[in-house]
Amino acid sequence: MSTAVKAAIIGSTGYGGVELIRLLASHPKVEVTSVISSSSAGAPIAEGYPHLTEIRTDLLDDVDPALIKSKADVVFIATPAGIATKLTPSLLAAGLKVIDISGDHRLKSRAEYETWYKKEAAEQQYLDQAVYGLCEVYGDAVQGVDLVSNPGCFPTATLLGLIPAVKEGYIDPATIIIDSKSGVSGAGRGASLGTHYSELNENFKAYKINKHQHIPEIEQVLSDVAGQKVVTTFTTHLVPMTRGIMSTMYATVTGDHKVEDFISLYRNYYEGRPFVRIRSNGTWPATKEVFGSNYCDIGFAYDERTGRITIISVIDNLVKGAAGQAIQNLNLMMGWDETEGLKFVPVYP
Amino acid sequence: MSTAVKAAIIGSTGYGGVELIRLLASHPKVEVTSVISSSSAGAPIAEGYPHLTEIRTDLLDDVDPALIKSKADVVFIATPAGIATKLTPSLLAAGLKVIDISGDHRLKSRAEYETWYKKEAAEQQYLDQAVYGLCEVYGDAVQGVDLVSNPGCFPTATLLGLIPAVKEGYIDPATIIIDSKSGVSGAGRGASLGTHYSELNENFKAYKINKHQHIPEIEQVLSDVAGQKVVTTFTTHLVPMTRGIMSTMYATVTGDHKVEDFISLYRNYYEGRPFVRIRSNGTWPATKEVFGSNYCDIGFAYDERTGRITIISVIDNLVKGAAGQAIQNLNLMMGWDETEGLKFVPVYP
Amino acid sequence: MSTAVKAAIIGSTGYGGVELIRLLASHPKVEVTSVISSSSAGAPIAEGYPHLTEIRTDLLDDVDPALIKSKADVVFIATPAGIATKLTPSLLAAGLKVIDISGDHRLKSRAEYETWYKKEAAEQQYLDQAVYGLCEVYGDAVQGVDLVSNPGCFPTATLLGLIPAVKEGYIDPATIIIDSKSGVSGAGRGASLGTHYSELNENFKAYKINKHQHIPEIEQVLSDVAGQKVVTTFTTHLVPMTRGIMSTMYATVTGDHKVEDFISLYRNYYEGRPFVRIRSNGTWPATKEVFGSNYCDIGFAYDERTGRITIISVIDNLVKGAAGQAIQNLNLMMGWDETEGLKFVPVYP
Amino acid sequence: MSTAVKAAIIGSTGYGGVELIRLLASHPKVEVTSVISSSSAGAPIAEGYPHLTEIRTDLLDDVDPALIKSKADVVFIATPAGIATKLTPSLLAAGLKVIDISGDHRLKSRAEYETWYKKEAAEQQYLDQAVYGLCEVYGDAVQGVDLVSNPGCFPTATLLGLIPAVKEGYIDPATIIIDSKSGVSGAGRGASLGTHYSELNENFKAYKINKHQHIPEIEQVLSDVAGQKVVTTFTTHLVPMTRGIMSTMYATVTGDHKVEDFISLYRNYYEGRPFVRIRSNGTWPATKEVFGSNYCDIGFAYDERTGRITIISVIDNLVKGAAGQAIQNLNLMMGWDETEGLKFVPVYP
Repeated sequence: MSTAVKAAIIGSTGYGGVELIRLLASHPKVEVTSVISSSSAGAPIAEGYPHLTEIRTDLLDDVDPALIKSKADVVFIATPAGIATKLTPSLLAAGLKVIDISGDHRLKSRAEYETWYKKEAAEQQYLDQAVYGLCEVYGDAVQGVDLVSNPGCFPTATLLGLIPAVKEGYIDPATIIIDSKSGVSGAGRGASLGTHYSELNENFKAYKINKHQHIPEIEQVLSDVAGQKVVTTFTTHLVPMTRGIMSTMYATVTGDHKVEDFISLYRNYYEGRPFVRIRSNGTWPATKEVFGSNYCDIGFAYDERTGRITIISVIDNLVKGAAGQAIQNLNLMMGWDETEGLKFVPVYP
Repeated sequence: MSTAVKAAIIGSTGYGGVELIRLLASHPKVEVTSVISSSSAGAPIAEGYPHLTEIRTDLLDDVDPALIKSKADVVFIATPAGIATKLTPSLLAAGLKVIDISGDHRLKSRAEYETWYKKEAAEQQYLDQAVYGLCEVYGDAVQGVDLVSNPGCFPTATLLGLIPAVKEGYIDPATIIIDSKSGVSGAGRGASLGTHYSELNENFKAYKINKHQHIPEIEQVLSDVAGQKVVTTFTTHLVPMTRGIMSTMYATVTGDHKVEDFISLYRNYYEGRPFVRIRSNGTWPATKEVFGSNYCDIGFAYDERTGRITIISVIDNLVKGAAGQAIQNLNLMMGWDETEGLKFVPVYP
Repeated sequence: MSTAVKAAIIGSTGYGGVELIRLLASHPKVEVTSVISSSSAGAPIAEGYPHLTEIRTDLLDDVDPALIKSKADVVFIATPAGIATKLTPSLLAAGLKVIDISGDHRLKSRAEYETWYKKEAAEQQYLDQAVYGLCEVYGDAVQGVDLVSNPGCFPTATLLGLIPAVKEGYIDPATIIIDSKSGVSGAGRGASLGTHYSELNENFKAYKINKHQHIPEIEQVLSDVAGQKVVTTFTTHLVPMTRGIMSTMYATVTGDHKVEDFISLYRNYYEGRPFVRIRSNGTWPATKEVFGSNYCDIGFAYDERTGRITIISVIDNLVKGAAGQAIQNLNLMMGWDETEGLKFVPVYP
Repeated sequence: MSTAVKAAIIGSTGYGGVELIRLLASHPKVEVTSVISSSSAGAPIAEGYPHLTEIRTDLLDDVDPALIKSKADVVFIATPAGIATKLTPSLLAAGLKVIDISGDHRLKSRAEYETWYKKEAAEQQYLDQAVYGLCEVYGDAVQGVDLVSNPGCFPTATLLGLIPAVKEGYIDPATIIIDSKSGVSGAGRGASLGTHYSELNENFKAYKINKHQHIPEIEQVLSDVAGQKVVTTFTTHLVPMTRGIMSTMYATVTGDHKVEDFISLYRNYYEGRPFVRIRSNGTWPATKEVFGSNYCDIGFAYDERTGRITIISVIDNLVKGAAGQAIQNLNLMMGWDETEGLKFVPVYP
């Protein structure tokens, strides 16, 4: 293990951080040498996460760039928004490679970040430097860089489901409507009425309609791909389950493309990218079919009566939507096969 | 109790039938005198439904119009599609009032029924005779009639959420997209892989995209209200919960109506109809907030950037979407207050 | 409604309080005239509980005995432990009837209360005055009194399942082992890691083994019934569901009593008490079969190989285990039929 | 991969079989060369299990010992009871190593098998030949043999939690009471009312009290360990979750052993066996803490008042309770490290 790349995880006590620990435990080329939490430094990580008993017996480190540099080559930032903005300059200066899973480096415009996140944005140079790590789309740009911004969970499912059609003009971008549903783990481990079992079990609800901070991220990428400003309608819902995201997307088809054309288009676009699976005509993916894995599965339905295509895209929000894609980005940064350490079969049932 | 109206329930061993039993048990003007099941006739109903132990000790009757007439004044048909078509003529001929909860008498066109239901349609005279019992919209027409067709669960949530806006031209009917989500009880009590716990728990999936038999029902009513042919995009999803439906609906707003205008419009339209509750600006209903009750709660969000309104409508699929609305129809047929026996507070949490 | 008994609810924003509101809404002889919350006084109750929209439009009152007396005849205390101790003397002095749903007046020994609850006990005179309202056992003693202590949720399910056998000596009290399971609503509405959806969903865990404050309550009553000191082993578990308690109880049978003997004994003991239902030989109740209702269902299995009886007892923790039994106690206090306003059919499925 | 051991799985379309596929996909020394299902032979396995899309593209084979032998070195039998009895002789005769995950070879007495399983037992020679593969207890006996009988899910959790104490006489075997709880996947993929989502969700129920076929298996092993006939009380319950088993076990402590003594005893007994984790005093494992992994976690509580110990033991029923332990047995049979291919971190949350 001495030749392994050494990784540190800031925010190890959050769900994204603890999922990194799980996934990296079986990565053949990476060793997690420091688990970091500003709030619980000094405590054994297994105290708050007993499933790690005898798996990780180390104590949580405090956030200290010099200490991190002494222990690691690469650092994942899996904190709430606002923290990576402050830490990234010193981590990069210390010579670390940084993969930011929080949203701090996704939007290229400081003003847009501050409008949607209600926090001070990172300096422009870091926003410019950060490569947006949607691996199947921007993977080439990730290779060799020092700062990657890992996409949000909703944007990952949504963009992988829309980009080929938008890029090739199979749908009218002005008509895109995105109806997304997420399991509760997306809200993090913080305790509140909004994450209380008795309030969410046997319940289904919408939240942050038209206000979610993932909207500008989705639109930034779609605009880039379309070569024109794209504005979308985006609704998020909470599903009484722990993991999983589905985006159900609607758009008006241009020309006379049918489902088979979409399937061909997407299979071509994602050829050689094993984590995107395009379903056959007449079947659509369910969230459980990617549970615990790095897959994004996509299916289509076309309605002749309305001329609209319905696109279904699912991921595990903690894997492809967070920790898994972050590792995929690390693989790409290091020039390794992008599937290294990620070939998990979904846990079913 | 001797002056109570006597009711029989065909299909008492299905979820719709057993919910009628629950709700009618506390109705002050109705007595259930016969629970009927062709498949389990002769067995105590509490054998298959132990929650009815000591509440209903009677045996299930077979389906026999003469027997029903000897015991009851009104009959609810809570069977799968295809059965009410066959039973209704003889039940009406026997002098019974009929409330059909199955879909057999909802579509006015025999051809359309046969296209979507893949079964032989009822004779045209019965389709013509049946009043579509969406109480808050067609309640006046229900009074005094002998045959009411109870709306489907998805159409109830969807139509109550769309009709005022379509009727008054606040939205462009050609742009309507309906993204619906349902608990599993909507699929009935039949055992299949599609209702298997381990397959549905911690899972979220779409089904019957553009193929659901509730599509023509929704479009028939919207076309009637709009005064023009309306075609919609409609997707159904299965939520890992037992009860509850949400329809999230999208449409382009005409004129410069804002959320407040929609709220005013809907509050006016539903004035005096206590089972529809219009939420205040900035809040949207969750399915648990109507669990076990006959309410339909509706909320709105307007997005200036896209000019689209998002409408959220929720019901309990077994109450307002089936048994509750059927009783509400009985109340209207009999000239009683429509809330008689239905003033349940939602069960929360 | 002018002749209705007027009721106030202290702790209206907890799950026990809000369940009292639901159940009392259809009680023919009671009107809730004041909903009280020290933490949210002045706010509309429907703000925190949107399912009450248009059902209760009043504001939460503060805790003030004089105000309560001006509005009500009877008061329910549905707060965490420690508060009823302080409020009860002034409420009684104001001439109100008091039903304490918290645990403050259940244990007759101040020392025992302070050992298990870690709080200062009520004065001895109030502990002496309070009648323990396990209706099917001590119902006669409840009639006409001013202070009733409502049993805990675990003790209700457990004691109703054990008392006839202990009283008649069918089992050896020294061998009793109680393995209880509860839905999450028993932990209240407070947000914590222990009530977080992602931590509890798809999880099953034990807690407070041998430490639960319901242990001395169970033993106090069993000792009273047995006429000797009874000590038990009691374990609590958390089930990933919202409502419901099951106690699975084990004891060595004395003499040669078989299941049929237990069934006869229990049916005789509970004759005329409609909320206890004894199941037939070979069937055992499930929690969903009492969901939303005031029933306690009990079943038995006898194992010849070991000479032990297994007793299964289920309730809805928020109804028979809290708000429902409190109303049953009010009915008894007032000399009404104990089922008044409580004849709800369980919500199934 | 050419030097890998080749494995076939009979019963690949059941939950045990499909879990073997998941786990073996990352086993460095095994290749699954044939997935077998008598009911679905000829169909792609991914058709019934879309989560395997592009992971396994092969078709299901029929059950044919000669075919199996031509493709594989070892065969897992993951079928319902009654089938391994018939297949095993010809599989062994063909020179295959057999790991039977069904219950057919667990009981040493044909009469006992036929009493509890209601099926014809395997011939005595095979019952004699089969080694009971409870790895941490009988692992040495597994090495090099051709026929291993994989323990049942309830026996695995229960026996690992009881054996050290029974063996060393820390508890009185005559007092053992076992209260077990299982997720729904233990019932398999067959559709029935008993596995219907709407019947199990928000429900908790007991089943097969004193009748479960795992009782004689538990008693056979405990009797072997204790050196005397042991009879137990055993109750099974169904938890509304997919995976996970907890056994809560009660027994009277002999001598003056305290919790610390039990912890020491168990840590010594399981030293060097990484899949059993003994929790520290005052903490008990929850099922989610072993979800998706091969761990069995055990915790203790001692009650001075009653002299009883409470032992909590949890596993993932599909991993340590089925497929995972089967692979652990394969590792032992082959002389490999028992953790080979099984070092999965539990999936949390």
